[in-house]
Order: sequence, then structure tokens, then C-alpha cells
Amino acid sequence: MGYNNFAEGSKSPVRLTDGQQRRPRGAKAPFLFGIRRTRTKGAIIPLFTDLAQARQQVLGQRGREPLELPPSVRATIRQVFGADLTPEEVAARILADVRQRGDEAVREYTQRIDGVELDQLAVREAEIEAAWDAIPPELRRALELAVERVHAFHQRQPKLSWMDWQEDGGALGQMVRPLERVGIYAPGGTAGTLPYPSSLVMAVVPARVAGVKEILVASPPRRDGTVAPVILVAARIAGADRVFKIGGAQAIAALAYGTESVPRVDKVLGPGNVFVIAAKRLAFGEVGIDQLPGPTETLLIADEGANPAWAAADLLAQAEHDSLASAIFLTPSLELAQAVQKEIEHQIPSLSRREVIAQSLARQGGIIVVQDLDQAVELANEYAPEHLCLLTRDPWTLVGRIKNTGGIFVGEHAPEALGDYVVGPSHIMPTKGTARFSSPLNVWDFVKMTSIFAPSASESQRLAEAGMALAEAEGFTAHAEAIRRRVTGDE
Amino acid sequence: MGYNNFAEGSKSPVRLTDGQQRRPRGAKAPFLFGIRRTRTKGAIIPLFTDLAQARQQVLGQRGREPLELPPSVRATIRQVFGADLTPEEVAARILADVRQRGDEAVREYTQRIDGVELDQLAVREAEIEAAWDAIPPELRRALELAVERVHAFHQRQPKLSWMDWQEDGGALGQMVRPLERVGIYAPGGTAGTLPYPSSLVMAVVPARVAGVKEILVASPPRRDGTVAPVILVAARIAGADRVFKIGGAQAIAALAYGTESVPRVDKVLGPGNVFVIAAKRLAFGEVGIDQLPGPTETLLIADEGANPAWAAADLLAQAEHDSLASAIFLTPSLELAQAVQKEIEHQIPSLSRREVIAQSLARQGGIIVVQDLDQAVELANEYAPEHLCLLTRDPWTLVGRIKNTGGIFVGEHAPEALGDYVVGPSHIMPTKGTARFSSPLNVWDFVKMTSIFAPSASESQRLAEAGMALAEAEGFTAHAEAIRRRVTGDE
Repeated sequence: MGYNNFAEGSKSPVRLTDGQQRRPRGAKAPFLFGIRRTRTKGAIIPLFTDLAQARQQVLGQRGREPLELPPSVRATIRQVFGADLTPEEVAARILADVRQRGDEAVREYTQRIDGVELDQLAVREAEIEAAWDAIPPELRRALELAVERVHAFHQRQPKLSWMDWQEDGGALGQMVRPLERVGIYAPGGTAGTLPYPSSLVMAVVPARVAGVKEILVASPPRRDGTVAPVILVAARIAGADRVFKIGGAQAIAALAYGTESVPRVDKVLGPGNVFVIAAKRLAFGEVGIDQLPGPTETLLIADEGANPAWAAADLLAQAEHDSLASAIFLTPSLELAQAVQKEIEHQIPSLSRREVIAQSLARQGGIIVVQDLDQAVELANEYAPEHLCLLTRDPWTLVGRIKNTGGIFVGEHAPEALGDYVVGPSHIMPTKGTARFSSPLNVWDFVKMTSIFAPSASESQRLAEAGMALAEAEGFTAHAEAIRRRVTGDE
Repeated sequence: MGYNNFAEGSKSPVRLTDGQQRRPRGAKAPFLFGIRRTRTKGAIIPLFTDLAQARQQVLGQRGREPLELPPSVRATIRQVFGADLTPEEVAARILADVRQRGDEAVREYTQRIDGVELDQLAVREAEIEAAWDAIPPELRRALELAVERVHAFHQRQPKLSWMDWQEDGGALGQMVRPLERVGIYAPGGTAGTLPYPSSLVMAVVPARVAGVKEILVASPPRRDGTVAPVILVAARIAGADRVFKIGGAQAIAALAYGTESVPRVDKVLGPGNVFVIAAKRLAFGEVGIDQLPGPTETLLIADEGANPAWAAADLLAQAEHDSLASAIFLTPSLELAQAVQKEIEHQIPSLSRREVIAQSLARQGGIIVVQDLDQAVELANEYAPEHLCLLTRDPWTLVGRIKNTGGIFVGEHAPEALGDYVVGPSHIMPTKGTARFSSPLNVWDFVKMTSIFAPSASESQRLAEAGMALAEAEGFTAHAEAIRRRVTGDE
């Protein structure tokens, strides 16, 4: 589940209505024109039988061009900063300002961007207790089950320190230990006013399992100065220590540098809008940063035996995240492809977010008929999707062949939507093809390692000659001398 | 071993003589004045008995202010880009240009910045064979021992995939697998024309152990268009697949985006000058990036029994890296402190890099008398040094209390200089206090993880209710529907 929308809460003046988003300007041909050539007239999702075309119009669509900010966001930026800034420039100014002026700057941006004047940045215990009663008991139980499952999953992850004790008294090893304090950003969402407690669970629980001593959460305040009760309850059940009512780049700044109210953390994690991501990018290196998530992606591979209604439901679920979400379906069966396309048209009218879904499917979605499953696997590895679903007769034989993806959903009874909430692995996964080199959020994100160098005196003697040769070759005579003195016992 | 000098090879027109570097402008008082108040007149390294002063003048010296570029570097920038750009602006231009024009841009920058016209960017096999004979046999044997040691150490690191197979047929787990292709940057050095083969070994070998399929190395060409033989030999022994004659930001760009000659990699690792670091920072998120290393740091903790000559030799070795290196000594014994200070004065004259050492010790170095070892540990954890050396009577009892450091050197027979070359753990470690949240380069830097979601049908049924409740709470009705269809078998 990645987020890259411009604003998270619909009540924020910096906001984006889904329909305002535009395609990157780098596209070679007008997009709708391109699509119309291959799709059934009026189809909700395009169907490609030409792979080259599918590559160009769907698989190759995760462009590099920066998204254009909608007019309302640009207006807010002009109003707050007196100039037409890019998200990177906005984030840079907010970071510098919060670093210098602390809470004062945080309050100011919260007032000017979110339209809220806060007395206190930290959520009070009484607010959390009130939230407990404000949400339906079945939702609380669902959160408890989610936390339990995510906890059980991450508990199994190996995170062992090791030491190699040598008979001569020397020892080498790696000490793996939890970070001291981390900050989790919990965004609202483009889904109207609804926040995403699930993302909070998916970051806080692995941190808890890793043994992080202090887990802070930042989430944007609503107009009335409160944080949504479901976020507060989720934070409590997941095991967060404190929640701060701060959103956007100012939240990242407060966590990264610390203010009077917010202690500085060692690492900042979690999804957010373009300003959050820009702030995370700028703070990288000074504070730990997990990933820079983009829009969410799901790629399904199915063979002729797959249930078209289930496949269609999975594509629709993926597309409802936001209009930038990608839902892609690969199959060697033209018959199945057509059946899924038809099912989508059949199912979409009853869905509450049908407009977002239609935009997402028309822009980034695609049903692609491939030669065979081998080709599907090859395309999936090239695309490196956040989620990969295998709706095939013998899915396990494909698992080892998938190189690049955040998570593999094996078989028709593992819908991605379930994985978003309660299966166990974190749903915060690498997007934009970054599964080539990065991993779903996991326990390792919350530990650090220290190397232990403890060669025995005799081992050091044995290694000394080579060490001195290398030091001399690099021109470091003081290094060679520091080694030599140990060998000779020279004082 | 971190690098943050402006240029790596003395033959590059973008270069920096050590003496040209200036203190960050943010310092509260003229630096030398501050030091003179506490140090013995004419001492090479200042000695502090006042902790507040030591904090301000030494421990708190890793500032945020950007370093000022020396006039010669600024002149080259004006000449190449026609404007007075910051390192970040230089890196941004080079990245964009190489991304668009590929090899052509790489050749152009190599010509204009390094003063070399290259026929071919990749090092030829014949060049590697010639290098083999060009270096002394004992240096080659030292490299072989280093590779063997680093390999043996990293071979022991656990990197296990795991699966939890359930009795009902479901399964969850994490598949841990190597990255496909990585790029290692191997800088030259400020040490005259001498390159650093050890850094190459410390990055390439853990990649090889992790199982990375293709390891590319980029290293700046010398004036004659060759790469130093010792780099080529080290690359071959360590197990790199190919070496490219490219330096600076253009090397990072070529590796991150790919060109006609250089295939795009999944992750870029290794130290470099300010332009390399700026390019890595900008490319973060699009390609994997390991760290953004700054100047190297060593902090020693010693009690009254420590050998002052050895401690002094360790401080001198640390200081010879470059004039920005930090060498800090903490001890509760005033007597030892004075003895070490004296030893430094005694040893420095015979060292070839005494000028760099003197600059480094005067600017960032310090001997600090603390109350007791507890206070020393506390200060070390606050400072989070790259290297931490324990020269105490019972060093193992302190190991577990050290929270933030890249590597712990346990006891007097584990000199840091030996760890730079042949002990086994990688010498590429977190600098600038980033040991709070990051780790020495290790096998985990070269793997990625994929979550496996394979709940059985009955497990999915049991989880469905909670999944739907959470999806509805987030406003995602299509998610709820995708789950519901599995439960009801609804088509």
C-alpha cells in the first residue's frame, strides 16, 4: 500500500480531488487516444493483445516526470510561502524552519496548512481513552486481530546477533540491536475523511517486535484539532508510545530534528503525500528513512482456470486506492482476459469508489494477453510490482521464479485485500520498481548492527604483515606504525 | 573509513589541497581561540578537563553547515558549468545529463573534469592482466588475505529465508534473496595519487557472499586513461565482474540509470567525495543507496592501565586519513591523558602525513578527561562514532553497554588500523552519528526480501470478517468485496 497523493485529509486546504490529477507530460502520445486503439469501445479497463503496446502504455507507465500539482494546492503554496514552489522546495523550507524554530514553526504550519490552531502537539491520554469508546467494538476487535497476526508473523523473523569465539581467545561477530526511538507517519487518505489505521499497525508492530524502546506516531490533525479515534485506538493496540497531531513535511521535520514537544527520533518510517515524501528524501542520511513510497501497484498472473469474478474483484480493489494506483492482469488466455474485462464492467457499478476506480483502470490499468506463463513471469520481474498475485493452477512452482516484488499472494484464496489487513506480513512494500533492491517493511528496518573486532594478540600478530603492506600501499604510514607497535610491543 | 573530501585523485583538476579546508562558518567562536584556552601551548592535540568545553569544541563539532568549496574547485565548476554551483547542483546537472545522453555525457564530464579522453569506458581484460604483474607480489598476497578474511567473516552472517508451513496447508514467510546487479564506487584518495583498494574489497566481498549475480566497479581514471593497477587487482581478487573508468557524480549516474556501456544496477554503494555523495543523495529512492558517508571518526576509551604509546599511535593513524577526520580519546586518568598527548608529539615527526595529522588533531581531535568509564560510555553513545576502541582492563564488560557505533575494537590488541584491512568485518561503517540507525556494510545490504502470503482457504475464511471490517472503516468497499467473494464463493 503506497501513497503518493497530494493531500491526505479532505479537510486540509492543501488537497487534491482525484479527478484533477494529470498524466505526466513526458508521455509520447495522447494517452486516451493510445488506449482507444486497443480497448473495446467504452471498456473500463483496456485489453492488450499486442505486447509492445502494453509495454508502452501500461508496463512502462511508471514515469520519471514529476506530477503536476493541482491549482488548489498551488494556491495554498503561494499563500503560505509567497511563491510558486515545488513540493521539494516546500519541504526544504519547512525542514529548515522547524529545525530552527521548533514547536513554533510546527504550530504555524499546522495553522496555515491544516487550518488548525493546536494548544498541545501531543495527544493526551484522555483523548485516547475517549477514542476507545468512540469506535465500534467490532472494529476494535478487528484491529486487535490485525495486531496479533502482524506480531506473530514478525516474531518469527530471525534477527540474531552472532559471535564466533575462537580457541585462541579472539572473537568476531555482529551485535544486532533495536533502534532506540522511531517515528511512524500515519497519513489520512484520499478516501474522503477516512484515515488508514492499517498502515499504522503495519509499521508500529514490527517496531515493537524488534524491541524499539520508544515508538512515536505523527498523524495530521482534523479541523477540530483532534486525531481520528480509530488512529488513536490503533496506535494504542499496536503499542505506540505517543501520538502527535502533526501532518505533512512539518511532521517529518519535527521527528527528524526534534522540537520542544517532539523528541528527535533515529528513523522515520511510513507512507505519506508528496510533501511528506519530499521531506523524507531531504532528511535521508541525517535520520534513518525507510522508503519513498509511490502509488500502489498490483500485478496478477492467471491461467485459464482462474475465477474471472475473483480476479476482477482483486483488480477493482487495487484500483480503488487512488487514481494513480496500478492494477495489471497478465494471462495467456484470451478467453479469461475477456471474461475479466466483462466482470469488471459488471461489478463496478455497485462500488462506492467507482469514479476513482474508473480513472485508475483507464490510466494505469491493463489486461494483457501474454504468450505463456513464462512470459508473464518475465514481465512481472521487469515491472517489479509492489504486490504480485498468482491465480494459477500450480502457483507454488512460480514462487521461486519471481525475483522482484514486495509480496507474493499464492493462489486464489490469498486475495491481496486480505493481505492489506490481517494476514501478517506488513503491507508497506516497495513501489515504483524498487522491489529490485528493497524489501517490505520488516523487523530489520528497526535494528542496527555493530561489528565486533576482537582478534587475540596472536591473531593480530599473524595478520599484521598483510595489514602493514596494505596500509603502506595506500600511503598510510601511521596505520602501518599503529599495527607495527602491537607486533613488536614497541612503546 | 568514510570519505568526504572534495576530490579523490591528486591529478584531477577538481581537487583540494588539505590546507584549504575551512571550518564551518556556524561555529560560535573563532576555533583556534577556543582551543588555545585549554590546550598546552603548542600541543598537537588539545586536552580538555572541562567536559562542557569538550562537548562544545570536539564532541559537538560534527556540524550541519555545508563545507565551503576551495577556490580551485569553484573555478573548475565555473569552467565546466558556466556558473557558481553547489555540489548538489553540480550532481543534479550531471545526473540529468547522463540519464539523457548516456555514454556521450559520461565521456564529456570525464574529459572536462578529470582531463582524460577515453576510448572505452570499461577496463579491458588485458589491462587487468597487465595490472597483475605491475604490483608487488606481497601486496597481492595481502589483498588475497584481506579478501579471504572478509569472506570468512561475512559467510557467517545469517541470511535465511524462512517459511512457516501450517498444518491446514497454508504458509507464510519471507524469501531472502540477493540483488541481481550492484555498482561499487571505488574512490582514489587524498593521499597523493594513491587509491584505496581496501574499500573496494570491503564492499565487493560482502556482495559476493550475498550471491549478487553481477558486481560492477567504477573508479576514476588517471590522467593517462588507466585505472590504478592495485584497484584492478583488488577488483579481480575480490570477485568484481567489471570495472569502469568513471569517477564522480558521472559514475553514480551511469550506474543508477545505465548507459550504452554501463548496465543499470539495482544498488550503488561505497564512499566518495562530496559530488559522489550529493549524487547518491539525489538518486536515493530510484536506485538503492547504502549510506552517505562523511569524514571518518574514531573514539577511544582507555583507563589508567592503557599503553599511552599504542593509544597515541591509534589516534595518529585515525588522523592521517584527511584533515576532516576525528580522533577522540576519553579517559578518567589525567596522567594517561597527559602521557598520550606527549606521545603524540613524540611520534608525529616521523610520520609521512604529519601535516594532515596535525590539521586533523587540531581541528577535530581531542583528549578528554572524564569522571569515570560510565561517563565515557555515555559520551560515546551520544557521539555514536564510526569506530570505538576499548583500551581498558576489562573491555568485554563494556561491549554490551555501547549502543551506537559501527564497530567495537575490543582490547589493546585490536588496533583500528588492522580492522581497516584484514580483520574481517567491512570497514565501511556509519559516520556522522548515523550509527544510531544504520549498520556497517554487510551481507544484508545486498539482499532483498519478499513476503509470502499463502493462507489456506479456511484460514482466509477465518480472517475475512476482520479484514472486511477494517476495509469498510477505511472506506474501501471494493477491498471488502474482494474478500467477501472468497468467503461466499460468490462468482
